[in-house]
Amino acid sequence: MSASFINEYSDMVEACLEKNLVGASDSYKAVIEAMRYSTLGGGKRIRPAIMLMFYKLCGGTADSAVNFAAALEMIHTYSLIHDDLPCMDNDDMRRGKPSCHKAFTENIALLAGDALLTEAFGLAAKTKGIAEYRIIESLSVLAECAGVNGMIGGQVIDLQGNGNINSIETLTEMYHRKTGALICAAVKIGTILGGGNNKQVLAGEKFAYNLGLAFQIIDDILDATGDEQELGKPINSDIKNGKFTFVTALGIDACREKARQLTNEAREALNVYEGNKKEILTLTEQLLNRTY
Amino acid sequence: MSASFINEYSDMVEACLEKNLVGASDSYKAVIEAMRYSTLGGGKRIRPAIMLMFYKLCGGTADSAVNFAAALEMIHTYSLIHDDLPCMDNDDMRRGKPSCHKAFTENIALLAGDALLTEAFGLAAKTKGIAEYRIIESLSVLAECAGVNGMIGGQVIDLQGNGNINSIETLTEMYHRKTGALICAAVKIGTILGGGNNKQVLAGEKFAYNLGLAFQIIDDILDATGDEQELGKPINSDIKNGKFTFVTALGIDACREKARQLTNEAREALNVYEGNKKEILTLTEQLLNRTY
Repeated sequence: MSASFINEYSDMVEACLEKNLVGASDSYKAVIEAMRYSTLGGGKRIRPAIMLMFYKLCGGTADSAVNFAAALEMIHTYSLIHDDLPCMDNDDMRRGKPSCHKAFTENIALLAGDALLTEAFGLAAKTKGIAEYRIIESLSVLAECAGVNGMIGGQVIDLQGNGNINSIETLTEMYHRKTGALICAAVKIGTILGGGNNKQVLAGEKFAYNLGLAFQIIDDILDATGDEQELGKPINSDIKNGKFTFVTALGIDACREKARQLTNEAREALNVYEGNKKEILTLTEQLLNRTY
Repeated sequence: MSASFINEYSDMVEACLEKNLVGASDSYKAVIEAMRYSTLGGGKRIRPAIMLMFYKLCGGTADSAVNFAAALEMIHTYSLIHDDLPCMDNDDMRRGKPSCHKAFTENIALLAGDALLTEAFGLAAKTKGIAEYRIIESLSVLAECAGVNGMIGGQVIDLQGNGNINSIETLTEMYHRKTGALICAAVKIGTILGGGNNKQVLAGEKFAYNLGLAFQIIDDILDATGDEQELGKPINSDIKNGKFTFVTALGIDACREKARQLTNEAREALNVYEGNKKEILTLTEQLLNRTY
């Protein structure tokens, strides 16, 4: 994923995070350090890039829309920190380095996650230069997609998965919520803030869920076939944990085909958007072919 | 705390929480049950009551302001759930019943806390009938007070306390952030949504921090002298854990005097608010004399 426009978005988001992840007092600096450790200088920044692409596609020009992009990354990061905790997946490594609770302590990691989630809404609420009703609507979408009927619901299904997730249908619901919902937030927020209409918001939702499912299927493929160093995390964890995934259900080849098909469907949903979709189409292709 | 107006506010907030803490699918009902278990039918509802009192005092009339009151309670509850986790205070009891992770599991409790925090912002963002810029400003205050420079910062200071908290000054900073900040959110949000001016917001902040510190000193006193059954949690935990508190530093009598003095200062700050302050003055008196 090396197209220069993605790097530009990444740099904008990184600068925004760098500036905002600071504390007002040294007396709790451990948690600030943990927040920065997990958020800065790593990650593919896919959600922020998607949001900013749709924002631009719909005609948005306000610089401070990057606040929402950074907020999406902060929410994604908090979910990874909490997911890695001993009572959850108990993962020691993340993004090629020790996970937050290994680098700090369990309680600081817990609070760093809580803080990233809280500050995400605070940063997003500081967006200026966009109609206020669009900002409120976007905050609402952010909470809905990250909340219990979105990402968190997906985490619960995943958590209680062993034995319960045994059909493509349940697996798809889990992925839709766990991964799709936050990608959906990125697309919808970009569209709403950029001035898009309801038809575009609905089509954006379809784009997001198809892309999100393709993304997750690629994740399953990479877990079985990827390079540990490139991925920054151990492979074969699904097989070791006896997980039902697209790969264990359908095999690698059918999974590649399915990911391609979902990516195509995602692209077709974009027809109701006018303007230059080159960046988004390039990104979808890169996500399909990614090796990490 | 039995004045009928407080019960009225409690009932409004309870109804709002009851209606909103629901899931869209049964597949993650465990986390919905955990959210409801910890949030509904318990707690003193002090923060929502304070918010609604200031809202009314400043002339607010929109019914849906209760969304923000419920959001404050959701954030307070999430902080209790996470505070009780084994990696934090490891408390088995809360509000007179098993704490969330004892009644459910540790991972469900973690996610229930995350969900309450997220949905709090979602519910607050659904407030209608109030100028949009006041809603955005209130969301900003909510994040700021609950965030890393507010409540979470206070939790970190508390967590790393043993040996580090050894002066009234550090203890006061910890309490200001850990308890004062969310009371401050209640006062400021009520004032902003109700149409108050900046002078009132600033005075409200002073009211809140003085009241919050008095509240916390009373908590310290109750930990040393209270009735375990009435409090719904074990007493003498501060002494057992060798904590530096107002009580261990100043003794019970000086603490009572200090709480009275802070309550008076809080009341004096209210001079810049016009209108009938009877409810707020009654509440401050009840908080000072509370036995649980």
